[in-house]
Amino acid sequence: MESAIAEIERGGRVESRHAGTAVVVDAAGKVVFSLGDIDRPTYPRSAVKAFLALPLVESGAAGRLGLEDEELALACASHTGEAAHVAVAARMLARTGHDAACLECGTHWPVDADAAHALARAGGAPSALHNNCSGKHAGFVCLACDQDQKLGGYIHPDHPVMREVTAALADVTGAAHGPDNMGIDGCSIPTYAIPLRALAHGFARFGTGHGLGPERARAAARLRAAVAAAPFMVGGTGRFDSVLMQEMGPAVFSKMGAEGIMAASLPDQGLGIAVKCHDGAPRAAEVAMAALLMRFLGPDARDNPVLRGLAQHDLRNWNGMTVGRVRAAGPMHPDHRP
Amino acid sequence: MESAIAEIERGGRVESRHAGTAVVVDAAGKVVFSLGDIDRPTYPRSAVKAFLALPLVESGAAGRLGLEDEELALACASHTGEAAHVAVAARMLARTGHDAACLECGTHWPVDADAAHALARAGGAPSALHNNCSGKHAGFVCLACDQDQKLGGYIHPDHPVMREVTAALADVTGAAHGPDNMGIDGCSIPTYAIPLRALAHGFARFGTGHGLGPERARAAARLRAAVAAAPFMVGGTGRFDSVLMQEMGPAVFSKMGAEGIMAASLPDQGLGIAVKCHDGAPRAAEVAMAALLMRFLGPDARDNPVLRGLAQHDLRNWNGMTVGRVRAAGPMHPDHRP
Repeated sequence: MESAIAEIERGGRVESRHAGTAVVVDAAGKVVFSLGDIDRPTYPRSAVKAFLALPLVESGAAGRLGLEDEELALACASHTGEAAHVAVAARMLARTGHDAACLECGTHWPVDADAAHALARAGGAPSALHNNCSGKHAGFVCLACDQDQKLGGYIHPDHPVMREVTAALADVTGAAHGPDNMGIDGCSIPTYAIPLRALAHGFARFGTGHGLGPERARAAARLRAAVAAAPFMVGGTGRFDSVLMQEMGPAVFSKMGAEGIMAASLPDQGLGIAVKCHDGAPRAAEVAMAALLMRFLGPDARDNPVLRGLAQHDLRNWNGMTVGRVRAAGPMHPDHRP
Repeated sequence: MESAIAEIERGGRVESRHAGTAVVVDAAGKVVFSLGDIDRPTYPRSAVKAFLALPLVESGAAGRLGLEDEELALACASHTGEAAHVAVAARMLARTGHDAACLECGTHWPVDADAAHALARAGGAPSALHNNCSGKHAGFVCLACDQDQKLGGYIHPDHPVMREVTAALADVTGAAHGPDNMGIDGCSIPTYAIPLRALAHGFARFGTGHGLGPERARAAARLRAAVAAAPFMVGGTGRFDSVLMQEMGPAVFSKMGAEGIMAASLPDQGLGIAVKCHDGAPRAAEVAMAALLMRFLGPDARDNPVLRGLAQHDLRNWNGMTVGRVRAAGPMHPDHRP
């Protein structure tokens, strides 16, 4: 249960190591790789944002409001609060006649340090548009407005919008979502602890449409195409998901979540992958996911330099010296032989 | 070997958990508490900054240059780059006729977000003075100048200053320091992997003077007094070490290091404590250290609200809602009964 998934090396020795759980399943739910207790309930956090955006698309709301690739990608995003993200979030809200004041996600400074410093340098202060979840929340606002729902309180589990997206989560993952497995996320909407196996299964379905109704399958394909067309929107400068999809295009859809969650769809292989770093570290979940992608994303993936760089990268210090590296470890290492 | 030291709870269940190693020893080296493999070599990183400052004091350089409490505390610091830290670092350098240009630690934005935003808002950019290690490096500069050593390259292991501080490390911890266990730290000076037991033993000696020569013991007492008088300097706003010592005064000297290291001296109890979170997470090492302090820092410590708050604290989201908590776990929990 406590298998290594990543190691941090310094001066030729392991300085820190991360344990985790990982699973690869096909759209029928067959497990093709597993490490650790894949049935232990785990909060997927922001990894399921694309599932939360399904009702926006399949209801027709996105079409009626004219949401374009960048906007749909931002609805699936944990973004870095760079200027382009903020502009697209504002555009989504403007399509409903609203602005940042209606967002219930809370406010924080841009995750991207350069964006934060630029905002401060300009004498500005962050708004809810800079919240990494502003696109997801703008999507909720779009859905609520299109359905003429009362907007205030859209983050609560019993609001019609939240009921609709929670039903989509349950359908796509095949896991129960209710008060017994509910926590509250950083942006105040519920997050539901589900088996990591179910999260991966959801990503296999999301990537293939198998096991989803026809409208839902079409909506999933639309969201994947939007993110493939605008991968910067789903993350930002230097972020794993953006870097990965800028390289791989529609061959993979990946999404991080807080506390060391990574999940991905591999449409061509018909697979879904989910990784949880037990201690919550993104750096570990990321290198482990990259290593699994190298193994399962087709014959060329192993030699793809971007993937290799995501599975193992140098640590540099403040003088730019290479002082160590972060790498996938144990059974996750791309060259591991069982 | 993989014992839990901290857990993150959300929605009533454990979302993430951290494993670690911990040890409490007296100044004779007798182990009074241990968890995990305390003989495994571990990089102490910035936890030993106070040991690195010993030559500055015991050589008489600090006295000749007129370094005061704030400056000596900053020499032991991993600071947040707030205005007061930057001013004191500059003052230390000015005493030698130098400025930030001589620092070899590299440059980064202030760790404290408010300080970073204020710097950007003022149209500024960070200098080496903002580096969290600038005080330690200013201490090296003071020592080199007092000894009329060539200043350039003071970060290299074969520079007289680095040889002197490395000899102090070896003496205080009783562990070998050489090319075989050397890594390079974030600020470019060497860091040496030593058993966690040796790190704790060093802190027991540093807190009591036992096992040190008389000059070194006096220098240790001087540095502890300086940090107790100016605890903000050793960290900054909201930082564990500053918050702890602002509350406890000279009853404890604690110092964090990167990658989940915490170490502390308990002078009155004659003990040293060291904690390493295996995955490198500060949040885990901090709650574990606080829990050990509650247990070993005398009869009133268990009920001290500041210590309790450091051993277990709420997680709040961007709307200020309490969504979970971080707490010492397993054998580290202050209420644990073996």
